[in-house]
Amino acid sequence: MVGHLDPQFLGIMDNIQKMLRRLFRTENRLTIAVSGTGSSGMESAFVNVVEPGDEVLVCVNGVFGNRMSDIVERIGGVLHRIDRPWGEVFELSDIEDALASHPEVKAVAIVHAETSTGALQPLEEIGKLCRSSGRLFLVDCVTSLGGERFEADEWNVDVAYSGTQKCLSCPPGLAPVTFSERAVKKLKGRESKVVSWYLDLSMIEKYWTDGERAYHHTAPISMNYALHEALCLVHEEGLEARWERHRRNSAALVAGLEALGFRLFAQEGHRLPMLNAVWIPEGVDDAGFRKALLDDYDIEIGGGLGEVAGKIWRIGLMGETSSRENIMTFLGALEALLQESGCLESPGAGLEAAAAEPG
Amino acid sequence: MVGHLDPQFLGIMDNIQKMLRRLFRTENRLTIAVSGTGSSGMESAFVNVVEPGDEVLVCVNGVFGNRMSDIVERIGGVLHRIDRPWGEVFELSDIEDALASHPEVKAVAIVHAETSTGALQPLEEIGKLCRSSGRLFLVDCVTSLGGERFEADEWNVDVAYSGTQKCLSCPPGLAPVTFSERAVKKLKGRESKVVSWYLDLSMIEKYWTDGERAYHHTAPISMNYALHEALCLVHEEGLEARWERHRRNSAALVAGLEALGFRLFAQEGHRLPMLNAVWIPEGVDDAGFRKALLDDYDIEIGGGLGEVAGKIWRIGLMGETSSRENIMTFLGALEALLQESGCLESPGAGLEAAAAEPG
Repeated sequence: MVGHLDPQFLGIMDNIQKMLRRLFRTENRLTIAVSGTGSSGMESAFVNVVEPGDEVLVCVNGVFGNRMSDIVERIGGVLHRIDRPWGEVFELSDIEDALASHPEVKAVAIVHAETSTGALQPLEEIGKLCRSSGRLFLVDCVTSLGGERFEADEWNVDVAYSGTQKCLSCPPGLAPVTFSERAVKKLKGRESKVVSWYLDLSMIEKYWTDGERAYHHTAPISMNYALHEALCLVHEEGLEARWERHRRNSAALVAGLEALGFRLFAQEGHRLPMLNAVWIPEGVDDAGFRKALLDDYDIEIGGGLGEVAGKIWRIGLMGETSSRENIMTFLGALEALLQESGCLESPGAGLEAAAAEPG
Repeated sequence: MVGHLDPQFLGIMDNIQKMLRRLFRTENRLTIAVSGTGSSGMESAFVNVVEPGDEVLVCVNGVFGNRMSDIVERIGGVLHRIDRPWGEVFELSDIEDALASHPEVKAVAIVHAETSTGALQPLEEIGKLCRSSGRLFLVDCVTSLGGERFEADEWNVDVAYSGTQKCLSCPPGLAPVTFSERAVKKLKGRESKVVSWYLDLSMIEKYWTDGERAYHHTAPISMNYALHEALCLVHEEGLEARWERHRRNSAALVAGLEALGFRLFAQEGHRLPMLNAVWIPEGVDDAGFRKALLDDYDIEIGGGLGEVAGKIWRIGLMGETSSRENIMTFLGALEALLQESGCLESPGAGLEAAAAEPG
């Protein structure tokens, strides 16, 4: 463990910034790891560029869009919220219509990969619309970053935030964020101070990006070591190869699940490869099944959150865990437990279908 | 790494809470580790119990009192600030006078161990005053907790926060906090939502302390492992023994420093054992000296912060680093570097004086 102003640690911070820029696909100078988990990244996105009275359009189709709305209201932003059913994604026209109704909106916020539903939101057209109309575009890529294509600069994203424990396969505890020059201009031109001292990037950037290296708070040293190593592994594999691996493995899992009669939850054509959400089959006890999976097979899958609690399962294939071996182990356990509970007559179809997918 | 809702991890959280209560010397149910560094603990203290318009008295005698003031203003509190020269502590009468002038004050905030000056603030009488007058008492014990007596319940402290990387010898990344029933009552009776979603303890407590174990944000798993282990080590040594070790070692360091002609910075009788602040001798180049100490001897000492930058050094003896061996290594290096720079004629006096102190 070295100090947070030790030259060695400052070098690690520099490397982290460079590797995060490659990961977000951005040239943004203000690209750092916020000292908290992914949710602190969400909060830092809003508190830094939304001032009291600023109108914000938030697109909600799951838990994390809901959370964005909550944050906007807490910090005094004027919330305009549009909703889609959970599991679906937004069309460009949804956003166009909302902006036509609320022309004073200064920022549009949306979730790229909705962890609560498994839906993958297309961003490119919305980004163009925001840029051409002079609005900031804020994106939650907590679950997608490093596992699915994300292009901060090409898609005109102004603020993006993520977490470390999803497709980066690093322990939870830091939130990678990136702010465009337009977002930084808004931050520097604020009339009011950022309501959160801890997340005020106008001060934190002096520690991360200035030669000054001004003390703000003590960085979580060992978490940054972990992120540094995780980013090295990500770039060693290569982003495109990593996205492709996540897609291939998801296809195999989905083939196996469908062969067992499972129905996917998220809208077809807009499904996440790293979080595969399925309807729980009728007659299966949600909590009991997941407990047996954990106790007997050491496998944890996510239950439903919010309005889909007890209705869906969320099966993660993120970062290092996205492997063919894990899929076969999981499908084998799933078949065995379904058979035990009398919900499956002859096992093997899931494993067979998954094995038939190109590896 | 297990999940943040894994039964094994929930057990670790329960143990952490029990060990933190013993550490803070409190029965407070709401005693947890906030998912950020010590500064997030400070922010969580204020955002949870101070509402917009609430009057708060903040006592400032260093960097961290300043930071408290900044936070109170950002969240819309009405700040009443009293100042003492850096290095000095507050008298009870200072607080009495301020409260007489501002009878509507709802909370009094003060720093127990001012890391920027090395001053140790007595708390017991101020705590009595706050309790008897129905005000909340908020205390920063980032640097003291685990290294110097701190008695949350006995001293009528309503909110206390700390960090992990000082006298707990854990990596930075979590902020132990404790909230009394009075503080929780204020939190639950708020008219406005807590401005920070990430630090809103009315939600976080449902994850930490309720049977419900409701998901709020993903806890930093490995950081909590580290804190669990650090707390085991603290209680294995015993709190009283730990405080005594810090005192004995500080006495040895101070004897060595005074024998070399150094003058202590903080007010006599109110000096921290884990952070020993001294005036930099005339003719010594601050930054160059500290760089040589780090490069040649792998020893890092703190420079001055804020108004004492370039004027003082802050020598930490915290947790595991508070050892006689470290003191002798440091004094040897200090003597050698002072001699090299022509500021010391005959070395040895510092080491000799330190060695003469009871170990």
